[in-house]
Amino acid sequence: MDKEKSVTAILRINCPDQKGLISRVTDFIQRNNGNIVALDQHTDKLEGQFFMRIEWELEGFELTKDQIAPAFEHAIAVPCHMRWQLDFSDQKLRMAIMVSKLSHCLYDLLARYHGGELDVEIPLIIGNHEEMKTIADQFGIPFHLIKITKENKAEQEKLQMKLIEENNIDFVVLARYMQILSTDFIKAYPNRIINIHHSTLPAFVGAKPYHQAHARGVKLIGATSHYVTEDLDAGPIIEQDIIRVTHRDTPETLVQKGKDVEKIVLSRAVAAHIARRTLVYENKTVIFN
Amino acid sequence: MDKEKSVTAILRINCPDQKGLISRVTDFIQRNNGNIVALDQHTDKLEGQFFMRIEWELEGFELTKDQIAPAFEHAIAVPCHMRWQLDFSDQKLRMAIMVSKLSHCLYDLLARYHGGELDVEIPLIIGNHEEMKTIADQFGIPFHLIKITKENKAEQEKLQMKLIEENNIDFVVLARYMQILSTDFIKAYPNRIINIHHSTLPAFVGAKPYHQAHARGVKLIGATSHYVTEDLDAGPIIEQDIIRVTHRDTPETLVQKGKDVEKIVLSRAVAAHIARRTLVYENKTVIFN
Amino acid sequence: MDKEKSVTAILRINCPDQKGLISRVTDFIQRNNGNIVALDQHTDKLEGQFFMRIEWELEGFELTKDQIAPAFEHAIAVPCHMRWQLDFSDQKLRMAIMVSKLSHCLYDLLARYHGGELDVEIPLIIGNHEEMKTIADQFGIPFHLIKITKENKAEQEKLQMKLIEENNIDFVVLARYMQILSTDFIKAYPNRIINIHHSTLPAFVGAKPYHQAHARGVKLIGATSHYVTEDLDAGPIIEQDIIRVTHRDTPETLVQKGKDVEKIVLSRAVAAHIARRTLVYENKTVIFN
Amino acid sequence: MDKEKSVTAILRINCPDQKGLISRVTDFIQRNNGNIVALDQHTDKLEGQFFMRIEWELEGFELTKDQIAPAFEHAIAVPCHMRWQLDFSDQKLRMAIMVSKLSHCLYDLLARYHGGELDVEIPLIIGNHEEMKTIADQFGIPFHLIKITKENKAEQEKLQMKLIEENNIDFVVLARYMQILSTDFIKAYPNRIINIHHSTLPAFVGAKPYHQAHARGVKLIGATSHYVTEDLDAGPIIEQDIIRVTHRDTPETLVQKGKDVEKIVLSRAVAAHIARRTLVYENKTVIFN
Repeated sequence: MDKEKSVTAILRINCPDQKGLISRVTDFIQRNNGNIVALDQHTDKLEGQFFMRIEWELEGFELTKDQIAPAFEHAIAVPCHMRWQLDFSDQKLRMAIMVSKLSHCLYDLLARYHGGELDVEIPLIIGNHEEMKTIADQFGIPFHLIKITKENKAEQEKLQMKLIEENNIDFVVLARYMQILSTDFIKAYPNRIINIHHSTLPAFVGAKPYHQAHARGVKLIGATSHYVTEDLDAGPIIEQDIIRVTHRDTPETLVQKGKDVEKIVLSRAVAAHIARRTLVYENKTVIFN
Repeated sequence: MDKEKSVTAILRINCPDQKGLISRVTDFIQRNNGNIVALDQHTDKLEGQFFMRIEWELEGFELTKDQIAPAFEHAIAVPCHMRWQLDFSDQKLRMAIMVSKLSHCLYDLLARYHGGELDVEIPLIIGNHEEMKTIADQFGIPFHLIKITKENKAEQEKLQMKLIEENNIDFVVLARYMQILSTDFIKAYPNRIINIHHSTLPAFVGAKPYHQAHARGVKLIGATSHYVTEDLDAGPIIEQDIIRVTHRDTPETLVQKGKDVEKIVLSRAVAAHIARRTLVYENKTVIFN
Repeated sequence: MDKEKSVTAILRINCPDQKGLISRVTDFIQRNNGNIVALDQHTDKLEGQFFMRIEWELEGFELTKDQIAPAFEHAIAVPCHMRWQLDFSDQKLRMAIMVSKLSHCLYDLLARYHGGELDVEIPLIIGNHEEMKTIADQFGIPFHLIKITKENKAEQEKLQMKLIEENNIDFVVLARYMQILSTDFIKAYPNRIINIHHSTLPAFVGAKPYHQAHARGVKLIGATSHYVTEDLDAGPIIEQDIIRVTHRDTPETLVQKGKDVEKIVLSRAVAAHIARRTLVYENKTVIFN
Repeated sequence: MDKEKSVTAILRINCPDQKGLISRVTDFIQRNNGNIVALDQHTDKLEGQFFMRIEWELEGFELTKDQIAPAFEHAIAVPCHMRWQLDFSDQKLRMAIMVSKLSHCLYDLLARYHGGELDVEIPLIIGNHEEMKTIADQFGIPFHLIKITKENKAEQEKLQMKLIEENNIDFVVLARYMQILSTDFIKAYPNRIINIHHSTLPAFVGAKPYHQAHARGVKLIGATSHYVTEDLDAGPIIEQDIIRVTHRDTPETLVQKGKDVEKIVLSRAVAAHIARRTLVYENKTVIFN
């Protein structure tokens, strides 16, 4: 997009609220001659928690990439009791996509990837049905068919996890993947599995939300992208959106209309994750500017 | 708005789907020299049900107002097994408003009434607290304070119902009325009590939905206007809408932001009811054009 | 979607408003034993014009496909001075896509096509740059590169039109095609060329609307899909939508964010055209249910 | 809302972008023992400009209200070439409302004021017609009728400005005030006059935008709230929103539907101004969190 975007460091912080936090962190960057290009902070007064995302240019910064973390740890993070994460904008995340039979979310992700909208690597796609293989092939991405039955689920998940490990995957996107992941799988990737659920959660948890929505006679349907936790459809919400429907809609037209909002919501959530704009606190997200 | 809107008849129909329904009804109007100004129909194929709203000008129509219903009943409604309702556009509905302590929905309704947006009569406002009396006074509408306690609820509801009867009220609007109506009250006015619930139902049924929404970390809040049935917050939905929120919002700012969507959604639902554009079937609404 | 959707006839009508129109048309279908599955009508009182779309099942209908048009013409269309069009749901439209260098709209159309959302045939894609060829190849659709310069435009357009004729194309979609079509081209396909313009027309006509939007400091950007007429960006609007933006957005991020709304708006307009739900009247559209 | 909100200082800053700005300002507050409760900053890279809004609690702050401005001026503002403004949360703004004949925006503002949503004083309402007097009376706010004709406009505006001066008005809201203000009036209150225009500017500048929208056949209408400048409907945009419309809408129903979006957009803009969340730069606004 920009002619040449300079490399930046991105620091995400969470700690108990206390005086002088912003001053301390910005002073740390300033003393080392860093140029801050973005800062967004949030104080949750009810919980007494402070959150910040700060991004600065590495060009001219007096610490090397390797020196930043130990220096920050020592000078600020430990005394302030921070949870924190440091990333660099030139370090591409590696994303795995898991799919079943529906193509709309997969296509939306891959079309953005191909068009340069998602600055990410996609080393593999895992499907529990073979239908999506042709799409993986279209984009030249390895497709792994790992069929799941009640009986083989535990062992097949081990295969999935092995693929994820071998490919150094940073995070997993469930693009209308129709299997419920086991607790073991979920625990292995905390805040690193992004799902799309086809309702505005917490409405219509579980199976066939559009059929539930039709039965209830709602005038809106929607989609929710969230990090996966052990509680079904109950993880921290990253993004939601809706579209209007009417009495004319059948469960089938709701399914059809819902696809648009599902794919946009999932892609926005993935983009926020890639840009390191998300931070999970208790069962919620802070989504930074 | 229009120079002089001619009086129209409005017929709402529901019956089992069968061939020739539209033709039969439009032919009935045509033979009597009526000019159709609006027709909206819907066929629910899953249920095998037909719904129609048809509106025609009375000027030049060869049946008088009194003659239409018996003629239609005999010629069409009985043979086609129709549920139907006939109204005339010059017959103003009489609306009662019930309130507690919050003013935003009440003001929105009264401001529209005063500005000519709602073609309705408002003979009375009933409050279970005295706070809204000053607003009723501003608009010169009689305010009846009927305080409700656990102990006196049954007898106070009788007072409310007596007022509604004496004032020939056609329908009741609960403008953030904070009491749960008894089954007796609800049964007395089927599909004639409109409530506003401050969530996108079926999410967050019951008390303090904004606090529930905050706890769940949603990125959208909304409001739902519905006809009141015996199941709490589970009646046929007339209208819903949402607004976006973020991690910055507290329960208090959600309450604040939600007011805008509550008042707009309630007023739209009331306007649809007044225009005879709603039809309840099972636990859903058809909202005609 | 449905197990087996029965074939329907779709009739779109426009004529001067007059009494008895709906009755006449529904009676015509009824007498021939047709089962109406959808009817949407609109009366424009300012213009004195009547519009209707009516769809009925051919199964059991007593006229063959070939007999319907002459019978309707004679019995109703001529006496009522109708403009009308008859289509059948099993007659797939043939759509050509014209592109330049941007992939998001093209991908959205092709992903829907591949996923069965758009019931259409796509015999060819025409590009004035070669970039989109790989995408056409992914989907196995013939790609024709026809480069356009100021000098060769007239003769290259003849090549384009030849391709369109040879392929029996019913309508053309400009999926961010960056050339202005000549009057000759436009006149050859009245109401059969669908464009997407990246603003909420009539705001920001012409080149670089996102840069114009940034310069103006708007808080919303949007997209408009319209039939192409000789006046640039001034044809009948089929669909529009918007997304919110802020002071943080640069022209580049507006371009990026705008892609989502462009592709959804264009695909919705194309879907409406394919479903024969559009009717153009004096530089506006009626979009039927 | 909150039990007892502590008093805060609110500082809005604009200056050329340079290293260390956030650090300098937060350090200034930190050294004086201030607790920052909100910070939002924005860097416009294209213009090389920095913008910040920072809010901190006065309780425990070591400078008195009077000492803050000179200390900040000397230590930071002058060396950094800042435009800046300091406000205190307990200093209520005084707002004048100007109206003509339409009530919906006026009611929305006054209902919010009465309900405690707008923390502002409203010493007077000025009308060029008498229609809105009854509403001013309902709320006990002095109403000044100052009729405007072509001939008397200059002298009547002097009366208006005299009232504004005498009442120590901080900012003026044009709540569908149907007169174009003179350059003299506008120049007297830079960035202190808020207008609502009933279109999504820059579409449909000038008179009768809904009629223009109807003629163009748009599928969306909207409203724009902006600071008034000498160029008609061309000032810095504070807020915009839209609603969907269809071919069924007449200019009259557009006027009707538009009222909802007009009143909400104007009230949101007024709330942002009152909360000192707006900052004008060139012909645009920064709207802080």
